[in-house]
Amino acid sequence: MSGAPDAAAAVAALYAADRAAQALGIEVQEVALGRVVLTLTVRADMLNGHGTCHGGILFALADTAFAFACNSYGEPMVAAGASIEYLAPIRLGERLCADAQEVSRGARHGLYDVAIRTEAGASCAFFRGRCARLRVPPKSSET
Amino acid sequence: MSGAPDAAAAVAALYAADRAAQALGIEVQEVALGRVVLTLTVRADMLNGHGTCHGGILFALADTAFAFACNSYGEPMVAAGASIEYLAPIRLGERLCADAQEVSRGARHGLYDVAIRTEAGASCAFFRGRCARLRVPPKSSET
Amino acid sequence: MSGAPDAAAAVAALYAADRAAQALGIEVQEVALGRVVLTLTVRADMLNGHGTCHGGILFALADTAFAFACNSYGEPMVAAGASIEYLAPIRLGERLCADAQEVSRGARHGLYDVAIRTEAGASCAFFRGRCARLRVPPKSSET
Amino acid sequence: MSGAPDAAAAVAALYAADRAAQALGIEVQEVALGRVVLTLTVRADMLNGHGTCHGGILFALADTAFAFACNSYGEPMVAAGASIEYLAPIRLGERLCADAQEVSRGARHGLYDVAIRTEAGASCAFFRGRCARLRVPPKSSET
Repeated sequence: MSGAPDAAAAVAALYAADRAAQALGIEVQEVALGRVVLTLTVRADMLNGHGTCHGGILFALADTAFAFACNSYGEPMVAAGASIEYLAPIRLGERLCADAQEVSRGARHGLYDVAIRTEAGASCAFFRGRCARLRVPPKSSET
Repeated sequence: MSGAPDAAAAVAALYAADRAAQALGIEVQEVALGRVVLTLTVRADMLNGHGTCHGGILFALADTAFAFACNSYGEPMVAAGASIEYLAPIRLGERLCADAQEVSRGARHGLYDVAIRTEAGASCAFFRGRCARLRVPPKSSET
Repeated sequence: MSGAPDAAAAVAALYAADRAAQALGIEVQEVALGRVVLTLTVRADMLNGHGTCHGGILFALADTAFAFACNSYGEPMVAAGASIEYLAPIRLGERLCADAQEVSRGARHGLYDVAIRTEAGASCAFFRGRCARLRVPPKSSET
Repeated sequence: MSGAPDAAAAVAALYAADRAAQALGIEVQEVALGRVVLTLTVRADMLNGHGTCHGGILFALADTAFAFACNSYGEPMVAAGASIEYLAPIRLGERLCADAQEVSRGARHGLYDVAIRTEAGASCAFFRGRCARLRVPPKSSET
């Protein structure tokens, strides 16, 4: 006992508490330490004014995969920032897969890349997220 | 007639078609050419596993303000990418204000900054979005 | 005495020790708390394979303005990361001006924007830098 | 004849014309289609005011690897923007290796990641660059 962190348990606990991920219909497909694969199917209430999937939804999917991957060790990490590049517009009903992989993980910071692809394997968006160890207890409400 | 673009009409039309923005409860507060202010109140279904506002929701709010601002001229622009920096966790019930301003607008590309603040004026997140002119007609489904 | 930080003295000390900035011919034009304006003239040894100013030189100019601005309070800050958007190619002999402004400054982190323009005022590039307070003493060589 | 693009020849031609890369002492170690490995040794004139390698130098190394990789097909691509995350300060005399890999390449845009490491293999910085196909001839000096 007290061996390697249990990534599946850590991610399951996070998902159970993540109201936003549940509301988006995000499903967990694969979990390992530092790696998580999620899926989401684009609903009508996820479309923007151009009739394609809202960029905020793509970002939320990637951000969730990133958050689950960087918290898969069971030590709380919080997102510090992220960037996303959009490659192609996504249509209603498309089933998207977000694959989060660890680029770097140090004592205080981590860097994770997420690729979003369609079921057919076409690249939709690439995301890079930065996280920081949650300090306990925070002494003040500093930035 | 055929005078300056009608920013209010352009944004109203976009908003009317933006199912995702409506589903998030986003409201339009101010509109001018290249500038849009939106508000959103954090609901329970917008919280992440840490019990604070999901980063994807913050991003979606900023991304919507960016999209409305860059499309306020009535010429279709699509997001090419964006980055966001998170400054502080946001609680349930907080009313957020996203203020999108134009940094640069050329013949084919635009750059917009969005600041998200609480009603009390505390900075929550800073977003920078890049957009490209939608070419009509697109010859192929290229990247 | 012991009043407001002396931004001019802080930046002068940094510049005197910054071999790279000196080697690039960077000159300090304006200094205030959180704000620095620098200039650089594009030399032949700053051109890339396309015959225009190397992106790394534009970045180095912006990064220097950012570093000087975030260290203008006399408390050591180090860069954590940055992004840059290029708007137009820059020719040999062009005199560039980099204007760094503070977006946000908290107890531990800061965010700064830098605009690079030609002498004629044309926008060349936009940079956004993130910095963190240098902890003294660092306990370990952690990330 | 007229078979696959000759990556080595394309990169050699770029390097021969890249005054900035030569001035930095950058050397080409490996070349393939979409992949380039470069090295640079940190000189005294590359140090910043903290006495560590200037972030602009790290960026210039990564940016050069990115430019060579995205131009390795012999079709001109220009950088549109990039981001970099710094992991650790770099000392004088350190020999750095920048490894650029292709993430995505479409008809008009490309995305490349560059990892900078020390000779001992420690991660120093991660860079992500976006490029666009150079249109010939450009009709106007638009952004």
